[in-house]
Amino acid sequence: MTEVATARRSRITPEREAELYAATLDLLREVGYEALTMDAVAARTKSSKATLYRQWGGKAELVARAMRHFKPGGNALGEIDTGSLRGDFQALLLRDDDCTMQQNSALMRALGVAAHANPDLLQALRELLIEPELAEFNKVLQRGIDRGEISADNPALAYVMHMMVGGFIARTLIDELPPTQAYLRSYLDAVVLPALGLSTD
Amino acid sequence: MTEVATARRSRITPEREAELYAATLDLLREVGYEALTMDAVAARTKSSKATLYRQWGGKAELVARAMRHFKPGGNALGEIDTGSLRGDFQALLLRDDDCTMQQNSALMRALGVAAHANPDLLQALRELLIEPELAEFNKVLQRGIDRGEISADNPALAYVMHMMVGGFIARTLIDELPPTQAYLRSYLDAVVLPALGLSTD
Repeated sequence: MTEVATARRSRITPEREAELYAATLDLLREVGYEALTMDAVAARTKSSKATLYRQWGGKAELVARAMRHFKPGGNALGEIDTGSLRGDFQALLLRDDDCTMQQNSALMRALGVAAHANPDLLQALRELLIEPELAEFNKVLQRGIDRGEISADNPALAYVMHMMVGGFIARTLIDELPPTQAYLRSYLDAVVLPALGLSTD
Repeated sequence: MTEVATARRSRITPEREAELYAATLDLLREVGYEALTMDAVAARTKSSKATLYRQWGGKAELVARAMRHFKPGGNALGEIDTGSLRGDFQALLLRDDDCTMQQNSALMRALGVAAHANPDLLQALRELLIEPELAEFNKVLQRGIDRGEISADNPALAYVMHMMVGGFIARTLIDELPPTQAYLRSYLDAVVLPALGLSTD
């Protein structure tokens, strides 16, 4: 899918592509995934529906690619290497300012629900967002193991994404507050690092 | 709200009340919160809309009370006291079988999104579900502190609900698997107890 899509996307300029992604996310915030149509994206961006289908194949891939385009720090996760696991995790949290994080949180919540009713959306989100993020996370963790910071058989290693994603979502549900950098730093030191066996003193 | 509602609810039998709650949750699963109407609940349960409004005031309270009626282990959380924090947490997880847990997980996900657009639903869910559960959780934790199992100033104490709720939700999002008792036990031993400073050996 990735190679085909890259070839397809090369027909429009990166600037135009960014405009289309931004308009898609605006519409998604306004009407939700179910009510979002390719017609509406075409009208909002003054492009033809045929162009949209040629470039992205359909709504699910367009939405997943738009989310990926605006994901935290672009695609810079792989470049984070501070020399310590705590430093790497903190750098991950700093990729977004609080305002962007709040917008993404609302979008992800809505898409999480929509993905349950739309297997093609779930697959596109997994392929374009979740799996690449998991792979990069695992690189960060592997460096922590290689440095001797974490034991390779620590059972919490299997749940690092669960802890992070869970803490992010639970903040809104339980405290009625948006996740902020301050909250995520505190959660990292209180929960994630101790579960991995790292002291935070 | 609680006292008024109790007085109101006393006009129908507990059996009839349980039927109405079950029908409300069935409809909720079928059409979602936004499309759920008091008309539809009245039709499905062969009751009058006037009765429903008199008993529950509106859709938000009806839904929150229906969720509370079927919440894990009824209202038995306060009765759990196994003598250890790990035992208490395991008993909490055992309140529901896997099938019930899966149904609740889907409902909570949908209601979580609806609550963001409906402040009255959010308030009813907080008042009737989240706050009572938090208060009972805090009793379990306080006993752990009193027994000397947890340090009273452990920063993870503030995030116990975040860890549990987060782990529950993240299972579906990240692994595309429903949360099961086996998963939650494993998550408890790998994440929650170590973050609280308890050994799980």
